[in-house]
Amino acid sequence: MTVNWAEHFSSLASRTEDSALADIFKLTERPDVISFAGGFPAPDMYLIPEVQDVAKEVFSRHATKVLGYGPTPGFSEFRDFIAARQTRLGMPAVPQNILITSGSLQALDLLGRMFLDKGDRVVVEGPTYLGAITTLSTFDVQIETVPTDEKGLQVEWLEEHLRAWSRQDRLPRILYTIPTFQNPSGRVLDLDRRYYLLELACHYDFMIIEDNAYGELRFRGEPVPTLKSLDEEGRVIYLGTLSKVFSPGVRLGWLHAEPEVVRKGILLRQGVDQCSNSIGQLLALEFGKRGLLEKQIQHTSQMLKQKAEMTLSQLEKEFPPDSQWTRPEGGFYTWVTLPEHIDTQKALLHCVEKARVAYVPGPAFYCRNQGQNQLRLCYSEPSLDKIKEGIPRLAQALAEGGRG
Amino acid sequence: MTVNWAEHFSSLASRTEDSALADIFKLTERPDVISFAGGFPAPDMYLIPEVQDVAKEVFSRHATKVLGYGPTPGFSEFRDFIAARQTRLGMPAVPQNILITSGSLQALDLLGRMFLDKGDRVVVEGPTYLGAITTLSTFDVQIETVPTDEKGLQVEWLEEHLRAWSRQDRLPRILYTIPTFQNPSGRVLDLDRRYYLLELACHYDFMIIEDNAYGELRFRGEPVPTLKSLDEEGRVIYLGTLSKVFSPGVRLGWLHAEPEVVRKGILLRQGVDQCSNSIGQLLALEFGKRGLLEKQIQHTSQMLKQKAEMTLSQLEKEFPPDSQWTRPEGGFYTWVTLPEHIDTQKALLHCVEKARVAYVPGPAFYCRNQGQNQLRLCYSEPSLDKIKEGIPRLAQALAEGGRG
Repeated sequence: MTVNWAEHFSSLASRTEDSALADIFKLTERPDVISFAGGFPAPDMYLIPEVQDVAKEVFSRHATKVLGYGPTPGFSEFRDFIAARQTRLGMPAVPQNILITSGSLQALDLLGRMFLDKGDRVVVEGPTYLGAITTLSTFDVQIETVPTDEKGLQVEWLEEHLRAWSRQDRLPRILYTIPTFQNPSGRVLDLDRRYYLLELACHYDFMIIEDNAYGELRFRGEPVPTLKSLDEEGRVIYLGTLSKVFSPGVRLGWLHAEPEVVRKGILLRQGVDQCSNSIGQLLALEFGKRGLLEKQIQHTSQMLKQKAEMTLSQLEKEFPPDSQWTRPEGGFYTWVTLPEHIDTQKALLHCVEKARVAYVPGPAFYCRNQGQNQLRLCYSEPSLDKIKEGIPRLAQALAEGGRG
Repeated sequence: MTVNWAEHFSSLASRTEDSALADIFKLTERPDVISFAGGFPAPDMYLIPEVQDVAKEVFSRHATKVLGYGPTPGFSEFRDFIAARQTRLGMPAVPQNILITSGSLQALDLLGRMFLDKGDRVVVEGPTYLGAITTLSTFDVQIETVPTDEKGLQVEWLEEHLRAWSRQDRLPRILYTIPTFQNPSGRVLDLDRRYYLLELACHYDFMIIEDNAYGELRFRGEPVPTLKSLDEEGRVIYLGTLSKVFSPGVRLGWLHAEPEVVRKGILLRQGVDQCSNSIGQLLALEFGKRGLLEKQIQHTSQMLKQKAEMTLSQLEKEFPPDSQWTRPEGGFYTWVTLPEHIDTQKALLHCVEKARVAYVPGPAFYCRNQGQNQLRLCYSEPSLDKIKEGIPRLAQALAEGGRG
């Protein structure tokens, strides 16, 4: 008797289905496609000779440590390093505030386990990071989407709804936000709104998860303080990552929170993957101690500036006047809104097959069916030449293939 | 207003508490303690110069790949390598049968998400791996423990209970077992019982998760086929790991199962940690391609043989005649049963503080309160001299401090 797998899968596994886009995304990996899809650093953002030198030192001086188990919360020297760095960035921390994780998405998974029961209310901004929607959805919670505008998430809309939810006695447990150079919109949450959002969190007693994957990659304008740096009650749980400023392949992120949260996170993690890889931690630590993180951030920001400018000027030239896009001051993305009759999901296959250009369609960044005429362009990975060549091809393909 | 964390934690987080042993385990890390506690390879089991050479090659030839993201199921060359290796070990596999994971515990977490709903019945052997109990417990399931004897889990006991559970219409969804050189007992499931267990799985329609972390580390006797190699219906999901045969620090394991299970595992993993670290995969691949895994397995097994022999002969000499222990043919552990009046949990603090010797008390390996007069000795990490010195100290400290 062969196994009937569908009968055996859990309710979570049964509702976790492959998206229709998965097959198209495979096409975007073809070398002849100019891809604005994946949110990766470009290979020439890495500091290869420096990394090779660091690796040589780590493997010659710490070979046994590289191969052995590390402690669940991360190597203590690495937690020290991250705590000192957070402090320098205006978010005072001691090592007991830091939990090293296998990428920042794992931190979100741990926080879901820590704070969410089935049916709980959770708030995100719309559009938001696809991975966060995936992770939060595994907890079978009710996800509410706050609309956004040029100043980021609309805090007034949130307050109105919090009042209503409070009357129902069903306030949210957590709010997940990417306030700076948001994924996918590239927008920054306004300072006034940051204070306002924190007030709401205190008043309505919920936690804010601040994902700051892109915040250090500013190439224009003035820095805005992180939510964590404005937080007086320990309500903000900060997620950091090395994926955009050092290497996504090391799979290292961290969570900066009150010691109670870190302690519970360590316990929960013992049932998940026990600890992060040792090599990555020791490599990142030595890289960081040599000041190379700052060097890579500066180098990456300069490249992003040129790429963003090229993207925006090509959009200006090539895209129809009834389309709009955001003008990021940092990060990887611009968010494009097309005339309503264009369906970016339907158009993607045409764009990839005929014009050899790829992007991520808007609906991927919403929990419910929204953003049909929107799309995300990631300008980080393609070269300046590819951007210059790709945007006109994209404009034409969308005009041909995008009719809904 | 400061946050009252206890009010905010989920039901999972609330029931996940620090064990009373955690503080004692911190003491075992002191350099003057001879520790038979942690299940780690000894530092001199690693092939350091070989690893350094491999690292040099990987960082010089594949630096961009080392730093970049890998695909969720693992690099395709690494899946190919593992599939070919599984095939060579008598378990025919193609890459679509293999999902690379961040250690084999993550594979168990993914399988829990895939097969378990709250309240489901799950079967383990008792005693069993502490980490598996932790992981399975997060799913809020009913864990049933099959007693074990010298031939491993008692399959007749299981059949009786399956009959009863079938009448209740509450058959188990999965059975988790470590059939070869079991953790913590060092025992091997008898070949007849392997066939019998597979028959039961087919008849009562449940999955077997076979954790084979130690199976290749045989130093005496004849190999017994894995459950996976005897499986005709795809009911056995095999968990492999590099933690005991290459390096725990790389955090790499794999799951070998039907393509349906691998596909679902990939989808579920996108909400967990997205992919395993690239460096570890490329390092392990090059290490493996050079035949060094086999070299390390041979070297490790020889060291384990000497250490096991020293441990057993010291137990024979030093332990009271009314105590018993298993005689492993491979792996890291022997399982000691002391006279009933000795409480190994109470004795641990005395053993660590006064005699500077550590072990893991029996109850850690059971879901319910069992094994009070039992303990696990891991002979892998301490040197021969330390084993020789440690066992008599342990015998004396248990006699002094172990009264219940």
